[in-house]
Parts: sequence; C-alpha cells; structure tokens
Amino acid sequence: MRAIAVKKGERRPVLVDKPRPDPSAGQALVRTLRVGVDGTDHEVISGGHGGFPEGEDHLVLGHEAVGVVEDPNGTRFEAGDVVVPTVRRPPNGGNEYFERGEPDMAPEGMYHERGIVGDHGFMAEYFVSHEDYLVKVPEAMADLGFLVEPVSIAEKAVELAYASRSSFTWEPESAIVLGNGSLGLLTLALLRDKLDYERLYCLGRRDRPDPTIDVMEELGATYVDSRQTPVSAVADEFEPMDFVFEATGYAKHAFESIYALAPNGVAALLGVPGSWEFEVDGGEIHREIVLHNKSVVGSVNSHVKHFESAVDTLAEFPEWFTDALVTGVYDLDEFAAAFEDDDTTIKTAVQFSTYEERR
Amino acid sequence: MRAIAVKKGERRPVLVDKPRPDPSAGQALVRTLRVGVDGTDHEVISGGHGGFPEGEDHLVLGHEAVGVVEDPNGTRFEAGDVVVPTVRRPPNGGNEYFERGEPDMAPEGMYHERGIVGDHGFMAEYFVSHEDYLVKVPEAMADLGFLVEPVSIAEKAVELAYASRSSFTWEPESAIVLGNGSLGLLTLALLRDKLDYERLYCLGRRDRPDPTIDVMEELGATYVDSRQTPVSAVADEFEPMDFVFEATGYAKHAFESIYALAPNGVAALLGVPGSWEFEVDGGEIHREIVLHNKSVVGSVNSHVKHFESAVDTLAEFPEWFTDALVTGVYDLDEFAAAFEDDDTTIKTAVQFSTYEERR
Repeated sequence: MRAIAVKKGERRPVLVDKPRPDPSAGQALVRTLRVGVDGTDHEVISGGHGGFPEGEDHLVLGHEAVGVVEDPNGTRFEAGDVVVPTVRRPPNGGNEYFERGEPDMAPEGMYHERGIVGDHGFMAEYFVSHEDYLVKVPEAMADLGFLVEPVSIAEKAVELAYASRSSFTWEPESAIVLGNGSLGLLTLALLRDKLDYERLYCLGRRDRPDPTIDVMEELGATYVDSRQTPVSAVADEFEPMDFVFEATGYAKHAFESIYALAPNGVAALLGVPGSWEFEVDGGEIHREIVLHNKSVVGSVNSHVKHFESAVDTLAEFPEWFTDALVTGVYDLDEFAAAFEDDDTTIKTAVQFSTYEERR
Repeated sequence: MRAIAVKKGERRPVLVDKPRPDPSAGQALVRTLRVGVDGTDHEVISGGHGGFPEGEDHLVLGHEAVGVVEDPNGTRFEAGDVVVPTVRRPPNGGNEYFERGEPDMAPEGMYHERGIVGDHGFMAEYFVSHEDYLVKVPEAMADLGFLVEPVSIAEKAVELAYASRSSFTWEPESAIVLGNGSLGLLTLALLRDKLDYERLYCLGRRDRPDPTIDVMEELGATYVDSRQTPVSAVADEFEPMDFVFEATGYAKHAFESIYALAPNGVAALLGVPGSWEFEVDGGEIHREIVLHNKSVVGSVNSHVKHFESAVDTLAEFPEWFTDALVTGVYDLDEFAAAFEDDDTTIKTAVQFSTYEERR
C-alpha cells in the first residue's frame, strides 16, 4: 500500500510503499479516508519536532485521520464504522496514564505520538489501531472527521482553562484567539457555538483581503491585527478578555496574554516554541497575575473524551464554516499540494479513499 | 480609644486617639484581642502599597485580627463570641462580588481593604464590622485567632491551584513553599497536616542556626537555600514539584517556578512585587508550560469560606508549631516592638486586651 512519509535526512514528504498492516488482537484494520495536515506536520517534516520509530528510516506522517473499519478483528466495531483515531500510544506495554484514559497527561518519554514521535502516522491507505484508541463518529463525518482531532485539542485546552476557574463564579463574556490558523478558527467556532461567548476576537497578521479574516468576521469575531495592536495593548484598545486562547507558538504572546486578560481571566497556551530569550517586566506580570487572580494553563494533546466532545462540537458547526475552512482536499496522487502553505490555504487534507468505494 | 495608625507623609506606626466607634444596623461592636503584623503592613507603612480612607489623614493599621463581641447590636452574634473579621469591604454600597460572597475576586477599585486600602484596620481597642464579615471561632482561639487571616490566604490559593488540576487525575506528592516568612511556614504546616504531602520543601536564604529553618525541619520539610539552589535548579537538585507555592514576592521565582514543576504541576503565586525588567527564556518557559500541561494561578485575599476552612486548619496545627511561629506578642504600650523585624522574628502581634478582662 502507499503511504506518505518523511525519510531520515530528508525534509520533504514522499510516497513510500509499505505492506498493508495486519491487525493484532485488540486492533481493528481501518481503511483511511482522509488525513489532515497541520503545523505539527510541517515541524516534523522540517526536523524541528518529533522523532522516528525505533529502527526505522522513515516516519509515516499524519495524526488527524478519519477512516472506515475494514476488518473489526473481534473488536467492538463493525465493518463500515467510520472512526477517528486518537494520537498517543503507550511506548512499552503501557503505563498509568494510558490505563486511566489520560495519555494526554503523560510526560515526555511515556508516550509515542502517531505520525509525530516514535510511531507511524495515519497517512497510509490502511492503518491498524487498538480499539481503545478509536472513536466512532457518524457516517456523515466520513468527509470532515479529520477535523475531530484538532477540535479535540481545543476541547481539552478549554476544559483545563475552565477547571482553573471552577472554584468561584466565573461567567466569561469576552475571548480572544491568538492565531488565525486552522486551530485558531476552529476554536473560534467552538467558543461561539458551544460556549456562547458574547464578544469574540481573533488575532493575526494579515492584510485584507484574506480568507481567514473573512471566516472570523463571518463567525462574528473582530479581527485584531497584531502589527497594529500587540497582545499587550488588546485590553486597552478593545477590551480585557476573560479568556485568551493562544495558538500561535509565539512566546511573547504567552507573556503578553497576562495584560490582555480581564480580572479572574485565564489564558490557555497551546503553542510549542523553541528557545527564545527576551526581556519582560517580570515584576509587573507577576503582580498582575496575583492582584487579579489570573491563571495560565498549558495544554497538549487530548484523550478519548475530548474526541467525543469534539464530534458533538463539529456536528454543530455551520456548513459554510467548514466549507470555507477546508481549502483543499487532494488525492494521494497529488498529495504534495496538501503540504503547500500560502495565504490562501487554511486547512488541507489528503484523500486516501472514499467512504463509498469498496476495495 | 487608642489605635495604631500611619499618618500621611510619615513612614512609621504611631499611637492615635480616636472615638470608640458605634455600630450601625447590621454591625457588631468588637473588642479587639490581638492583631497580627505581616509584610503587607510593612509595605503600607512604607507607602509602597495601599491607600488612606477618603478624607482621612491617617490609616489605622491591621488586617489580621481576633476579637470578642462586646455589643452584638442585633446581629446573629452574642456578647462574648470570639470572632475574626475578613478584610475586604464594599466601597460604595456593594457590588456583585460582595453580594455573592466572593469579594476576594473583586477587581481593583471594587473593594476597600481594612488596614490596607481605603478603610481603617483593626489595630484599635474596638472596631465595628458588618456581621457578614465576621467569622465566629472557638473561644480557644482567642489567643491565636489572628492567624486565621493568613491561613485563609493559603486556603484560597490552594483552592484555586487544586481547581486548576481538577479536570484530570492529579495526586500530588511533592510541594515546595518559596519563602520562609510566616505565610510560608503556615502554608507548609497546612500542606503537611491538611493535604498530606509526602515530601515538602521550603526555600529561603538564611544561614543556620535560624528559627525558620528549625520550624520547617521540625515540620518534616527539607530546607532549600536559594543561594545554593535557585528555583530553576530545584527539580534537578531535589525533585520536580507537583505544587509550588510562591510567597516571596520575588518575581524571578514566579517564572522559575515553571522549571521547578513536575509535569501537570501547578504554581500558586501570592507575592506582589513592583515593576522589574529582566530577561527570560520565554520560548522555553512557554514550551514547558504547554508540553507538560503546567499551570500558574495568581491568588489574592480570601473570603468567608476560606476563613472557615482556616479555622479548622489552624485547630489541627500542633502547639509546638504555633508556639515557635509566634515569636512575640506585645502589649499596646510596647507596640513598636511588634513592627521590628530581624532574623529572630517570625510572627508578631499586638495585644489590645485579653478575652478574660471586662472593661
């Protein structure tokens, strides 16, 4: 079967031929429908993040997948079930985090991530997965199910952020998403449709006309151009935000978020920047966190329950939104186009097969 | 009656004579027993924090009080009840934060703090307080009830920190308190006696012999000398901490706490530093918060429920601990001694009257 992989020493995705995997006990065989591409894939390809499976000279890419069960192999699934796989797998026989269904809380070294670190991803015509890491989705999500994983990332961050404000009365009305990439826009839709924010903002650094600005405005959010309004000035120029969702990976945003927050607000950080030294008014940031009971939570990955919430959330998104968000779905023959990224690209996926086809 | 106040333009506490207050409807008249002194008092005295009541040329000090109800004035209290007052009061007829019992979450400008900002404190022979802001404590706490307020500060910070970890399985075993002042030591005792931490650490910058090091070691905690082990090295030299409680007001500690935390850990910040610019590896801190699901919560002040928890917590503290902690209780005639601070001082209080005496 064909798969999309990055080879050791190379910095681009290539087609490779691999044997179709056989499911072991507890695993189902899944025929891949679509696999999304995101910033993490680009970091993995460039060598900035992730790692190859032990003893392998390549890594099959892809962690945002939807597929159809081809061979249930004795698991709870039936042939034809549409499923979305979670990303983390236990590295050596499992550990407590996996046992209690919270692999997203496992520290480094206690997980592999399919398509990212230590384990092949889903960009292949077939993949196998233990049934514990497959989430059944409605048939109608055969097309858009590859968005369940990124939405689950937002679900988990929101869950952590809200938990941090759960010991007192907190009724957030205003939120800003830092970042106008696909995760940022998906989060914006989640904040609007699931959490009913009254006022939403989204920060980017693009000139109009721009498709991401169109999408955020259609969602009812206000565009904040970070070149005119840095994060530290958002509270003054727009309003203090009850919730800040950082999806840029730009480290100064993490620190400036404190200034953007309203009293008792929370900033969820999701970006994964590299080392970068800069000066901050640490005293002022510290004081501001304390005197206004502010909170910061970091969030990485997600687990089955977040995927299940994401399925519900995704089902609520209006069709115009997902139509505008998914700017390209490319057949395996033209997969390279799915990895191209310019100002007209928001979210792309590679199509490996269709739900209807029989092989 | 006599009161201890700081006058405008002066930087030292002085005795003033004021009329004994009359309780209004809803207020009780309280005869003051003892009032503790803490770092905030020193900041108020030096002009670095707080503010005078409107139209007044002085501020009566003191926010850590215990007293006995002299005139219940139709409130739910009886004469002779031992009570501890909370600190925040509504500035102009109240607001939503006070109405729902969460004045500690009110933003700046929406509260006065007795003895700190906008309202006279409790360092007077008598004070009045609305019954909503008085917490009844056991008679046996007539002596040590002035410790309820600082313990309530720790209770609230712990509540916020634990809430931030409530969306997943979190079973903390190790904690470090940054700061060996009275709040730090009270928190250490709380972590030991109420939260059952297996391994406790306390950071200071003192040479032995030192009474605070004696107390922390008697509590079973390990002393960490910050001159030898900066906060950023604590994880490597001791162990990664599930919980960091910052009570130093030293801003670099707030940032270095991220390095001290174990995966999924939380740092509670309580210090209130002034502006201070310094360089941080913001990228590394940001990345570390995200990849290990870390959290930071700021916490200020406390409300009635935290005072009630603090009463229970304080009752559990061993007598040797409070004996060692309270290094001086001074009569009103020698109040100045309560404001002196050297390496043999941990916690002091001014005694205004005794429970037994009748006036």
